[in-house]
Amino acid sequence: MEQFDFDLERIFKIIKDKKCKNIGLQFPEGLKRQGILIAKEIEEKTGASTIISGNPCFGACDIDTILAGYVDLLFHFGHSKMGKYDNVVFIETRSNIDVLPAVKIAIPLLKTKNIGLVTTVQHIHKLDEVLKFLRNNGREPVIGKGDLRVSYPGQVLGCNFTAARIDCEEYLYIGSGFFHPLGVAIATGKKVIAADPYLNQAQEVSPEKFLRKRSGYIAKAMDAKVFGIIVSTKSGQDRMTLARQLAEIANKHGISAQIIMMDLVTPEQLLGFKADAYVNTACPRITIDDSERFHVPVLTPAEFEIVLGERKWETIEMDEILEGTE
Amino acid sequence: MEQFDFDLERIFKIIKDKKCKNIGLQFPEGLKRQGILIAKEIEEKTGASTIISGNPCFGACDIDTILAGYVDLLFHFGHSKMGKYDNVVFIETRSNIDVLPAVKIAIPLLKTKNIGLVTTVQHIHKLDEVLKFLRNNGREPVIGKGDLRVSYPGQVLGCNFTAARIDCEEYLYIGSGFFHPLGVAIATGKKVIAADPYLNQAQEVSPEKFLRKRSGYIAKAMDAKVFGIIVSTKSGQDRMTLARQLAEIANKHGISAQIIMMDLVTPEQLLGFKADAYVNTACPRITIDDSERFHVPVLTPAEFEIVLGERKWETIEMDEILEGTE
Repeated sequence: MEQFDFDLERIFKIIKDKKCKNIGLQFPEGLKRQGILIAKEIEEKTGASTIISGNPCFGACDIDTILAGYVDLLFHFGHSKMGKYDNVVFIETRSNIDVLPAVKIAIPLLKTKNIGLVTTVQHIHKLDEVLKFLRNNGREPVIGKGDLRVSYPGQVLGCNFTAARIDCEEYLYIGSGFFHPLGVAIATGKKVIAADPYLNQAQEVSPEKFLRKRSGYIAKAMDAKVFGIIVSTKSGQDRMTLARQLAEIANKHGISAQIIMMDLVTPEQLLGFKADAYVNTACPRITIDDSERFHVPVLTPAEFEIVLGERKWETIEMDEILEGTE
Repeated sequence: MEQFDFDLERIFKIIKDKKCKNIGLQFPEGLKRQGILIAKEIEEKTGASTIISGNPCFGACDIDTILAGYVDLLFHFGHSKMGKYDNVVFIETRSNIDVLPAVKIAIPLLKTKNIGLVTTVQHIHKLDEVLKFLRNNGREPVIGKGDLRVSYPGQVLGCNFTAARIDCEEYLYIGSGFFHPLGVAIATGKKVIAADPYLNQAQEVSPEKFLRKRSGYIAKAMDAKVFGIIVSTKSGQDRMTLARQLAEIANKHGISAQIIMMDLVTPEQLLGFKADAYVNTACPRITIDDSERFHVPVLTPAEFEIVLGERKWETIEMDEILEGTE
């Protein structure tokens, strides 16, 4: 069974060493169930008081900065470091699941020698053994560094595929889900084999269906008269400069575009507004993952440029937030 | 048809007089639909740039302080002033609906001379004509001042019934919904006639069923071993001192109680945590309005004291946030 190692002893030590009295704890959704027990254990072992963040938490962008302001130290669980904070400690979680069986299944699907290796943070400690394994099988795997938004070579985020921008002909992605490997495929235009260690299977990612769907949203948004341009206040997602540029270009084209600033972007929350379509400059995953739950088209910034006639259809790209642009 | 008057001209004038360049706009849920059009009109008439708050907004507690920090001036629509902010202008909305027909229906139900008058902010400008009307009918209506959390004499909030703490034997509430008149009835222990100008009807409020339901939640929470004590970061709802006191008393009784701090409190967001019951020190309306949507009992602070044996069952009270306690 998959287990996540929390290293609570390290947390106890940091609290005692820094003589902290007030501790904040933030867990991603999947780890919240254990949150209250962990809080209790920290209080018993260190004597510090804890406050748990109850706000939604899906990534390293979701640092609860208000809670951080309340406490001596905030422990953010489950994500690798992003951004600069004085009193936030990132407690990454690593999966103990064996990735090699899925990699073995992937090998026959990889046709070249040079293979770009990418994964998400919970499997990042497994990349070394995958490297060795591929080399023993006559391949020459390469790992990209990525920009400053990512913490480890080979790490991709839902909003950043810079670690995949390397010299190779095809990629091996290790992890679950379709989002990250799809992002790598679209960002690089190259073949990606996704090896899923949970399902023990491997398959080539095909972005065609996805791109067709996005084209549908663009076409639908061509009829929109009023756009809402969404900007998030979350650390690492604030692209107000981009939003203002887009609003200005829209206005030049005679299209009304108003800026809407919010914390969490949800289909329910957008329902209240009466825009014909939206442009999402916040978390790029929301645009894609929730696309079918939105009542009107929600576009990426690049897709909106296509609507405005400022970009060619053929250049649809995966929305990324790069180092220094947030 | 009911209409709300926004006084956009006043807004244009304030922006021009103060020579503001960046304007924030915040609308409650029911007014968000008009938000984008109002933003556009402000931009056209004043030349200022606008940013609309996309965050949930249910009351004067929900001031979007992050947006306020981004802009020269934030206009908060639909609620009367609460709290102190350097750059927030409250644009109250007043309903033009005629309240007298419902008051006429209420009169036979009011048996005494001295009648306490209470209402919500959207009808507050109608209190004068109600006063006159009652006097012409041989009554002696009285209006209470309330504490500093309320803006007008006779105004009640979902979390504050201090304007009802006056010398009278029965009350006339003017407005829709059951929450406010129920709150007045429980807070004062006196008879309340609720006159609804939308439905054109009037009836006596009976808190018995409501109190039985609350007793049920208290009884269920008696079996809980782990409590989460919710504290909101919203301005005007931060009762951390109370939460810490409750956690301390709980621990003395051998009951585990951990503090959870969040912005918006929703049943969905609490689902993630594994507590047997919660105590809500945030918006008191959430405890009541969402009670059936929570998966476990969510108690008011006073109800939690009953569970801990620190308060008698007979003293169940409406949770209120009073001036100076937030």
